Amino acid sequence: MIRTGIYGASGYTGQELLRLLLRHPDCEVTALTSRQYSGKPVTAVYPHFGKMTDLAFMDASPDDVASLCDVVFLAVPHGEAMDAASRFIEAGKRVIDLSADFRLHDPETYEAWYVRHRVPELLPEAVYGLPELYRERISGARLVANPGCYPTGVILGLAPLLRGGLIDPGSIIIDAKSGTSGAGREVNIASLFCEVNEGFKAYKVGTHRHTPEMEQELSLLAGIDLKVLFTPHLVPVNRGILSTMYGTPGKEIDSDLLLETYREFYKGEPFVRICERGVFPNISAVKGSNFCDIGVAVDGRTGRVLVVAAIDNLVKGAAGQAIQNMNLMMKLPEDAGLNLVPLFP
Amino acid sequence: MIRTGIYGASGYTGQELLRLLLRHPDCEVTALTSRQYSGKPVTAVYPHFGKMTDLAFMDASPDDVASLCDVVFLAVPHGEAMDAASRFIEAGKRVIDLSADFRLHDPETYEAWYVRHRVPELLPEAVYGLPELYRERISGARLVANPGCYPTGVILGLAPLLRGGLIDPGSIIIDAKSGTSGAGREVNIASLFCEVNEGFKAYKVGTHRHTPEMEQELSLLAGIDLKVLFTPHLVPVNRGILSTMYGTPGKEIDSDLLLETYREFYKGEPFVRICERGVFPNISAVKGSNFCDIGVAVDGRTGRVLVVAAIDNLVKGAAGQAIQNMNLMMKLPEDAGLNLVPLFP
Amino acid sequence: MIRTGIYGASGYTGQELLRLLLRHPDCEVTALTSRQYSGKPVTAVYPHFGKMTDLAFMDASPDDVASLCDVVFLAVPHGEAMDAASRFIEAGKRVIDLSADFRLHDPETYEAWYVRHRVPELLPEAVYGLPELYRERISGARLVANPGCYPTGVILGLAPLLRGGLIDPGSIIIDAKSGTSGAGREVNIASLFCEVNEGFKAYKVGTHRHTPEMEQELSLLAGIDLKVLFTPHLVPVNRGILSTMYGTPGKEIDSDLLLETYREFYKGEPFVRICERGVFPNISAVKGSNFCDIGVAVDGRTGRVLVVAAIDNLVKGAAGQAIQNMNLMMKLPEDAGLNLVPLFP
Amino acid sequence: MIRTGIYGASGYTGQELLRLLLRHPDCEVTALTSRQYSGKPVTAVYPHFGKMTDLAFMDASPDDVASLCDVVFLAVPHGEAMDAASRFIEAGKRVIDLSADFRLHDPETYEAWYVRHRVPELLPEAVYGLPELYRERISGARLVANPGCYPTGVILGLAPLLRGGLIDPGSIIIDAKSGTSGAGREVNIASLFCEVNEGFKAYKVGTHRHTPEMEQELSLLAGIDLKVLFTPHLVPVNRGILSTMYGTPGKEIDSDLLLETYREFYKGEPFVRICERGVFPNISAVKGSNFCDIGVAVDGRTGRVLVVAAIDNLVKGAAGQAIQNMNLMMKLPEDAGLNLVPLFP
Repeated sequence: MIRTGIYGASGYTGQELLRLLLRHPDCEVTALTSRQYSGKPVTAVYPHFGKMTDLAFMDASPDDVASLCDVVFLAVPHGEAMDAASRFIEAGKRVIDLSADFRLHDPETYEAWYVRHRVPELLPEAVYGLPELYRERISGARLVANPGCYPTGVILGLAPLLRGGLIDPGSIIIDAKSGTSGAGREVNIASLFCEVNEGFKAYKVGTHRHTPEMEQELSLLAGIDLKVLFTPHLVPVNRGILSTMYGTPGKEIDSDLLLETYREFYKGEPFVRICERGVFPNISAVKGSNFCDIGVAVDGRTGRVLVVAAIDNLVKGAAGQAIQNMNLMMKLPEDAGLNLVPLFP
Repeated sequence: MIRTGIYGASGYTGQELLRLLLRHPDCEVTALTSRQYSGKPVTAVYPHFGKMTDLAFMDASPDDVASLCDVVFLAVPHGEAMDAASRFIEAGKRVIDLSADFRLHDPETYEAWYVRHRVPELLPEAVYGLPELYRERISGARLVANPGCYPTGVILGLAPLLRGGLIDPGSIIIDAKSGTSGAGREVNIASLFCEVNEGFKAYKVGTHRHTPEMEQELSLLAGIDLKVLFTPHLVPVNRGILSTMYGTPGKEIDSDLLLETYREFYKGEPFVRICERGVFPNISAVKGSNFCDIGVAVDGRTGRVLVVAAIDNLVKGAAGQAIQNMNLMMKLPEDAGLNLVPLFP
Repeated sequence: MIRTGIYGASGYTGQELLRLLLRHPDCEVTALTSRQYSGKPVTAVYPHFGKMTDLAFMDASPDDVASLCDVVFLAVPHGEAMDAASRFIEAGKRVIDLSADFRLHDPETYEAWYVRHRVPELLPEAVYGLPELYRERISGARLVANPGCYPTGVILGLAPLLRGGLIDPGSIIIDAKSGTSGAGREVNIASLFCEVNEGFKAYKVGTHRHTPEMEQELSLLAGIDLKVLFTPHLVPVNRGILSTMYGTPGKEIDSDLLLETYREFYKGEPFVRICERGVFPNISAVKGSNFCDIGVAVDGRTGRVLVVAAIDNLVKGAAGQAIQNMNLMMKLPEDAGLNLVPLFP
Repeated sequence: MIRTGIYGASGYTGQELLRLLLRHPDCEVTALTSRQYSGKPVTAVYPHFGKMTDLAFMDASPDDVASLCDVVFLAVPHGEAMDAASRFIEAGKRVIDLSADFRLHDPETYEAWYVRHRVPELLPEAVYGLPELYRERISGARLVANPGCYPTGVILGLAPLLRGGLIDPGSIIIDAKSGTSGAGREVNIASLFCEVNEGFKAYKVGTHRHTPEMEQELSLLAGIDLKVLFTPHLVPVNRGILSTMYGTPGKEIDSDLLLETYREFYKGEPFVRICERGVFPNISAVKGSNFCDIGVAVDGRTGRVLVVAAIDNLVKGAAGQAIQNMNLMMKLPEDAGLNLVPLFP
């Protein structure tokens, strides 16, 4: 059994990692940290874990946690994760960081959008943890940067177009809609039930921190530097991100060819499902699962390409993908512990 | 007092008309029709009207209704409205049709998207009922075609750009999100609570019937024929449409100039509110009111223009706008009965 | 025009008072206080008020506010309201206190459930502001204690039974369910969207502070001291309280007689609606209005009496009732500004 | 591998059975019937099953289905299930019927609440499938009547009280609240999103068909015939039932003793979780799982006993319990395929 630790386990992502690891056939959870809830049993904070675990949160240093684990999932905020990652790597542990700290290859870009990077020397070896693109490199990595929730759906949705040169790289518009768990469990007025329920809005227009992450990966796929227009919106549901993406074709293309391209690109992928022609995904069909559902079309009236991608932001957009990465790093079956039927309704 | 009738009053739009007319200072409601609920008091179907009205639904012919009213609101489905409208016009009544039957000036376009038009001779005199664009003509009209819910927010959102030549007319992408009352009160699996709640999806991709209506009005504003890419989505809320719209500037422009253009364009308009710079609308801030809230920006990274417009689909997107039109037709103050503070939360 | 002030105007109740007062034919709002948002326009905190008011929040002392108003609504937390009320009364103003500070006649009971009372000398003149029971005394009051949200529905629901001696006063069980705006706009984890949405729970079982308030009023109605079992629950909706109440009949009774008793008791009441036999209320039918809907039955199997009452917790349960009280105090028509059609859906 | 069939598989319960059986270690699904969707792949009706199964619905007779299965789950409506059950039993199959057809031991009671029973000769051998009460008999049964969703939580919640003689059997009041999936996937206005969302109501007051089922089982537990007052309510969530139950103690009792009684009664039970003192369950903590969470207290003010029980109506209230019964019938570990961590948020 692989001994796993969750460093920063009290948020929605942390508890989702725990949900999945408790049913992973090859793992046991040996450490859960939380400063705020130190000493409290998990079930006192998250009663749904009753009868599922006796674990308690502890306020432990990375070194203490390292002694208990083979693999560590970092679910602390960006800025805080980089130091912990550095300690875990030094201690010889495999690290999957769910924060943004190792996603951007360029420390200056990181600093422009977040804070100054304190361990830039680790950036070159960090692998961007999107298995559909970087499976091989993830398998050999010590440090994996787990992708952001928005970038996961967006990159999977656009990769076949960009790698195939099917769209003008300068034409990409991403209109994304996220469930509220994406905002985490931090208290603030904007996340209160009455503020979100029966509402719908765009937020962080033109300024969301996932923008450079998308641009980095989409540029690598396209082979040239590109910029995207990214508009996130808040949906009054718990889980799910739907990204509707638009672009101008780079060559003659129709819906059938498009569909064929996507099916070919994702052939054999366990967690990507391409919708039938004329069908588009719903976040309710991926809830609780590691799937990314993708629907595509060429709009007959305008000739533009349209792609819709749906994920569960806490699973494929966070904890599930992290475990998929761990499976690759530890030479386990890629879908171990992730063979989850979505929960509907 | 103006005697008003609602022909087809049992749907969500019909009952919203009733809600507003019951508090209109210059109107009384003298006829409500419904085949399904004929003979039933309104309160048996919609208990929220208790103590507000003693009216009952009746199954009456247009001629019977005409004898009871000065103005008729048609809230029956498209295809059915045209014949009734014709009868009411013959009877000398003012008609505001909330269906699609008189929105498209070209009967062939109407036939391509709906059914064959049986009273095309009325099309030339029907006025498209968007007061912010056609106030004068509405004032003199016998027959007003009340705009669709999606087109209302979209046209108001794009009008200043197109009339000012600020965007490339061929570049428009409209990503719209509607609350579920837009689907009406007809029963079908897709509208069940469990199918909508905790879900989010695109629907009728590239095929929604509001497309030609938007294109007609946006083309008139631009002065050339244009096509739009329009993608509607379903939001798990009762009311509200948020439309996020994208375009490529036709000339050098920045966010400040854009904002100035919108403020100038809508100066004096009672029901359009332009958001401060960096602020974007939320459907929860227009709920129950006749407002259209608009936020605009030029995206610094890509240079594209972004417009977000929010309305309550049952008010500014249907019943409220219909009453605004009636006020104009009957020379009443334009905001009579519409001075509604949004209900939040 | 009556000059009204809202002391503590930034919470959900405060903004609801503003919504209603802005459309009150005989009032103007001349002062809105908030420590947190002092200096900010209302529209910066609550954008739905755009074009409706230019008012800004101010951080003003009771004396400063007193100089601007004829009537003051106190919407600050209990414990804080009593001092402010005392100052406003001294300044000769009419006061409607929406906190709990003057609801309990007995300062010792108040202290047992809240804190020590600092102005017990005002308690004897404070009138419990439930117009259906105390209309006359409210008309002559300087200080009205606006009822709690739960007690409003519960007392209205049980009054005809207790005054008529129709149930055993010791048998009352109240199972109440409240929308989330009842928790106010304070930030805490339990009020986050993801914690409330898709959940349902009982809370403060046997310990909710509205218990002694109900018991005081129900005891007065019954003519003897009684205790109730009160269980509040949290519903994932914005607005509304549904209270389901159970009791053992004190004499032979059937559903028809029960219904007759309720109709007679509330005859002429503008804001109480008694449902037809076999029909029970839904919170969605009172949303945004000052109505209390009541359904009653004698259960054929067990012989017990069942009463269901629904209100909008922010209107009849708070701001609407406060204005109803002000109307009585200022000799205005009781329904002035409250003639609101519920918003559905 | 046990070959299982779902007879009537297109409703919410049917698809939930499929979700669970697809991950059951000892089962395969060999037949799914649906008249409406005959010939369609499951994924065309429920896209969340993509990549999970290639099965299609078929319109097959019980005899045809019998030839494909060892065990059959009946998820057709009451009235329809009895004939099918009879055929499957004749064919030598084990049957778990999720309808009401075999829950009531007395055919006259069945007829009074449902329709005339056409195979009363099977009633004596049908076992009421609540494993916590009838584990032994279920193990030996050919035909198990899977309990209703409301009765499951209610009976589990009250069993320790009644068997221990701790409450007056005539004093029971059950105030239950169900998520909307309990209404099934049938189309009707009352189940539309806009009718349920932002609403809360009691329904079928005093007339719900689960009443005699509860009374049968509670009477057996109490050892005398008892009647209950049962009031179901509709909650705007997808899944979950919370039942709040009240009774008068039959003997001196306090919260500690009560808690001890419950812990003892359910010792070793894999799917019942007793909350700590002062803690009460939330439906969000059992979502997607087979747990029944129970909280208990003696109300200090009135001396009454209060029990709150929460289940997921589609799992412990239907499909999960059905599989628990199958596990017992087939001598599998009782929790095989049911070791599900609840999905939160």
